[in-house]
Amino acid sequence: MAPNETLIYLDPDSELSLQAQIRQKLVDAIMLGTFPEGRRLPSSRKLSEQLGVARNTVVLAYQQLVDEGYLISRERSGLYVNEKVRQDRVGFEGAPPPERTLSPRWRERFKGRLTPDAEFSCPPNWQQYPYPFIEGQFDTSLYPVKEWREASRLALGVREINEWAGETGDADDPMLIEQIRTHILPRRGIQARPEEILVTVGTQQALYLAVQLLVNSKVPVAVEEPGYPEMRRLLARRGAPLVYQPVDEEGMLVDERLDDCQLIYVTPSHQTPTAVTMSMERRRALLEQASRQDALIIEDDFEFESNYLNAPHPALRSLDSEDRVIYMSCLSKVLSPGLRLGFMVAAPEVIREARKLRRLMVRHPPLNNQRTVAFFLSLGHYDTFLMHLHETFRERWIALRRALNYYMLFYAELAPAQGGSALWVRGPEDLDDTFVAKEAARRGILIEPVRHYYATDHAPRNCFRLGITGIPVERIREGVLQLRDLFHDLTANKTETFADARGEHLTGEALRAAVTDTTMICIIAYGDPCTIEICPDGDLVGIAGYSNEDRDSGQWWIANNRWHRRWSRWAWGETGVYDVRLDGDIIKLFDEDGWLIDRAILRRNRRDDAADNDDPGGDTELA
Amino acid sequence: MAPNETLIYLDPDSELSLQAQIRQKLVDAIMLGTFPEGRRLPSSRKLSEQLGVARNTVVLAYQQLVDEGYLISRERSGLYVNEKVRQDRVGFEGAPPPERTLSPRWRERFKGRLTPDAEFSCPPNWQQYPYPFIEGQFDTSLYPVKEWREASRLALGVREINEWAGETGDADDPMLIEQIRTHILPRRGIQARPEEILVTVGTQQALYLAVQLLVNSKVPVAVEEPGYPEMRRLLARRGAPLVYQPVDEEGMLVDERLDDCQLIYVTPSHQTPTAVTMSMERRRALLEQASRQDALIIEDDFEFESNYLNAPHPALRSLDSEDRVIYMSCLSKVLSPGLRLGFMVAAPEVIREARKLRRLMVRHPPLNNQRTVAFFLSLGHYDTFLMHLHETFRERWIALRRALNYYMLFYAELAPAQGGSALWVRGPEDLDDTFVAKEAARRGILIEPVRHYYATDHAPRNCFRLGITGIPVERIREGVLQLRDLFHDLTANKTETFADARGEHLTGEALRAAVTDTTMICIIAYGDPCTIEICPDGDLVGIAGYSNEDRDSGQWWIANNRWHRRWSRWAWGETGVYDVRLDGDIIKLFDEDGWLIDRAILRRNRRDDAADNDDPGGDTELA
Repeated sequence: MAPNETLIYLDPDSELSLQAQIRQKLVDAIMLGTFPEGRRLPSSRKLSEQLGVARNTVVLAYQQLVDEGYLISRERSGLYVNEKVRQDRVGFEGAPPPERTLSPRWRERFKGRLTPDAEFSCPPNWQQYPYPFIEGQFDTSLYPVKEWREASRLALGVREINEWAGETGDADDPMLIEQIRTHILPRRGIQARPEEILVTVGTQQALYLAVQLLVNSKVPVAVEEPGYPEMRRLLARRGAPLVYQPVDEEGMLVDERLDDCQLIYVTPSHQTPTAVTMSMERRRALLEQASRQDALIIEDDFEFESNYLNAPHPALRSLDSEDRVIYMSCLSKVLSPGLRLGFMVAAPEVIREARKLRRLMVRHPPLNNQRTVAFFLSLGHYDTFLMHLHETFRERWIALRRALNYYMLFYAELAPAQGGSALWVRGPEDLDDTFVAKEAARRGILIEPVRHYYATDHAPRNCFRLGITGIPVERIREGVLQLRDLFHDLTANKTETFADARGEHLTGEALRAAVTDTTMICIIAYGDPCTIEICPDGDLVGIAGYSNEDRDSGQWWIANNRWHRRWSRWAWGETGVYDVRLDGDIIKLFDEDGWLIDRAILRRNRRDDAADNDDPGGDTELA
Repeated sequence: MAPNETLIYLDPDSELSLQAQIRQKLVDAIMLGTFPEGRRLPSSRKLSEQLGVARNTVVLAYQQLVDEGYLISRERSGLYVNEKVRQDRVGFEGAPPPERTLSPRWRERFKGRLTPDAEFSCPPNWQQYPYPFIEGQFDTSLYPVKEWREASRLALGVREINEWAGETGDADDPMLIEQIRTHILPRRGIQARPEEILVTVGTQQALYLAVQLLVNSKVPVAVEEPGYPEMRRLLARRGAPLVYQPVDEEGMLVDERLDDCQLIYVTPSHQTPTAVTMSMERRRALLEQASRQDALIIEDDFEFESNYLNAPHPALRSLDSEDRVIYMSCLSKVLSPGLRLGFMVAAPEVIREARKLRRLMVRHPPLNNQRTVAFFLSLGHYDTFLMHLHETFRERWIALRRALNYYMLFYAELAPAQGGSALWVRGPEDLDDTFVAKEAARRGILIEPVRHYYATDHAPRNCFRLGITGIPVERIREGVLQLRDLFHDLTANKTETFADARGEHLTGEALRAAVTDTTMICIIAYGDPCTIEICPDGDLVGIAGYSNEDRDSGQWWIANNRWHRRWSRWAWGETGVYDVRLDGDIIKLFDEDGWLIDRAILRRNRRDDAADNDDPGGDTELA
């Protein structure tokens, strides 16, 4: 058979004539598009030889197809598929058909059928939205094109091809193992021997392998609540009894609820989905508890290099002297999810069993990619690029935090994240989160409802994650502003505005007298305290954070009966112009559109020792 | 943390002093090789800052390591790892430890542990053996380096990266789907819509998915006997009752033993491991039986393009009007097993479920490889390269068949293969096949025992597969000769040689009179009949095959009391020189070393109408 020839099989037992069979097969091929556009059909002589039929049979079949418009004849050139026929066919270009109800025929065939995903799904054209606050979407503009090409070129050397092209049974590329061992793991404090490392098709495969190996319906497993839905689904397929362990600002709780668990799944670096980093104390407590009850731990370090506020914590696996921790991570955040390259680090016994199972599943992850990534690492591109990425994401994360703090103070959800790639906001109450997400998308803003991370009924109402992996830094502020406006629009009658807020509208000298030489005490987004000293000389001194780690200075003044302030860095160094109301000891600042921007306790400064016996308790609730 | 810095974590609660902890972590890093060779250690000032300890603590730890020989100090340069320490350590370079007995601790952890592979395993350095008759090993000298590089380069364009690098959920590359649909499947007679195709990490994943979806302990499944061991293993893991269905020269038998099967696994193109092609009649019977009992069929078309003697048969899926066939194939035979790229074609319902499960397993096969292969296909390289590969393998296959026919007539196993990448030989009786394979390997010949393909006790004694995918054509004849010599050596006293054979040694005129104007009737390897007419004028006319499809002519003569013959093509066109014995009507030819080369019934030609009443039955057993 010559290349590119369609195999037409004629059935001698068919009730159709040979001519009709030829015609039928050709029509199928044309309509299904298996006969590529613009290709000339074989001559009647050639096709008749190939099929072993009389030439006239083919000639007649062809003629009929021309008559019917399937084929067109071009002079001195031959017969071609008439593209019009195909274009007329609805849905030809292979749009997947809508998910139909499964016919009974198939329903009973499928064993242990997967429940449909209740999951949020990001639109495929998310990059065309102006404000894609979507976590986990890879910003291809950050892809290290030049460096990846260099690594690819090296992996395509003849000697390299000799090493990766062959059948290796179930082995990984030793060069990649060595690079992971010496280049990636030490950054997480992990020391591993080659036989403790297995390369996987993304973290997903590492999770699948671990669950298959270690879990059945008799193994109680603890998962974080909220937590990673796909892990829950994997565990549910094995019938494991699940313990949904709550998460606080130090990560997953370690308490008696874990007592019966034989396996504990955690995401300590940045908890999925809250992005909370597990504290060192909690890490140690977890390892101790696991040791007491002889449990294993799966440490999913899917996002291991994005701590923006503090030094990174060492991985659980690096603190584990009893080989209890099965560590997994991936290169998707750095080298694109499309590559699907992850790895697992565990006791050699676990790796050996996982390798056997991996062999049955896929044999091994593609070796050309393993070698290319090995070169990418060995050339030092990984380190360079990681630094670049870290810097980029840190900038975005801080921009998002700042914008939320300014525009969305009353929507920001308390979660003491130190990094990661998402922050939380709480949308307007009493609205369906799917509806809100849809409305936001209509305005070009993509946000992710968090409900699907919860297995129990404790999902907070109408919460969203705002991710930074897909949005350029210069769009973040505007995106948050637009989202705030949407929230306001959706709750038009309920939000406090200048017009309907309680408290006396301060103007002129009353305003000056009320604010001069005072301190505003407020809580900024994510629960950090903040004090702003309003000095008599027009200076502002701002101190934020639990350790006073964030400081700024600025000026304030009054003009047109409005309070003005300008920070050097905070609020983008721009001048803010506010109408002010004072409600007891609560000062409220409204922007020019009447939206509430800030709310704080106002205290007269101590140095003048004036009477100052307001009760700071009572009605000073802030969030 | 600067790139490439090892994370050292000091435990404040440790009983070790800070200095001892630093020392310990550094020794670990040095001995495990996580601290790369030739890298300077951080200065004591830098490390003390990083760890938050007094500088002197680090200085003292360093000093001790220098004293102990772990570090060496180079003047004006700093401290370095002393490479000698590492070199002295046995097995440092990460040779995997021998498979130990699993400690009880792990044994009870692993659920549904995989049994160790009883499988034959090819030595990793097989390419260094002169005669690697190993099936499935990829001959990297055949890799389409230039074409693959071109496709890779295209897939590394910025626009392309944008398409494959991102998170796509569970979708495949639409370009690859289109290429499989229009470029690969039509060659097998299959017409498929996009929603009927799923890309997999090799055929292995397609099998895994199908088994997970369709099989549990209540689903009886038929497999071929002998058959693919990894499929048996996959099915055994699901607890499926298995029916071991025998294979004959038309492929898997279709009979009442299949009656209760809900799923039937077949390899119709070239049966694994016999390489038999399933006949059209058998294919139709199989589909009919499946239809009658509402069973599904998995068609594993792992080797779909290697029929060397006849036109290819259409795939079962192309003959299946009831959507019962789940077709799977891969690009490993063409584009190297290292790539791990396969695909599945089935009813949209099956593909949809398989996609959900694939998502949990690996999300999707790497998209950069999907796009590269799509370009490779769309550029037409696949067709060109396939033709080249087909031609190369055909040449090797025919060379192997010819050499077996000449040297190994009495060892060749009957199996009417029309293609595929392996042929069978039966080794000497009464010897352990593992022993024979090992002895062969000592002489540089790699052959694969077939026992592990059998699930039941019916494995033929001491049979081997000789594969052609890894051996250059010019080595085949010599390899077969060497293997024959090994077989002879292993059975020194049992093989018939010239010295001890029965029958009269013919010389001079007696020899001429005996052979002139006769016909030798023999059976060549693989059961095909062959007749050789020995004409009075010194001509030879040879006709072989059931349809007399293989013909050759040559000359014969007598010199030095030996019979000489030379074919135009057969026996490489070389002159064969034989001592001849006649035992009744059986003529035996021995080569110069005394080894039996040929044995045939000798008939006087009819045209002289002479008395010719020998009984051709009785002692004329040939194989």
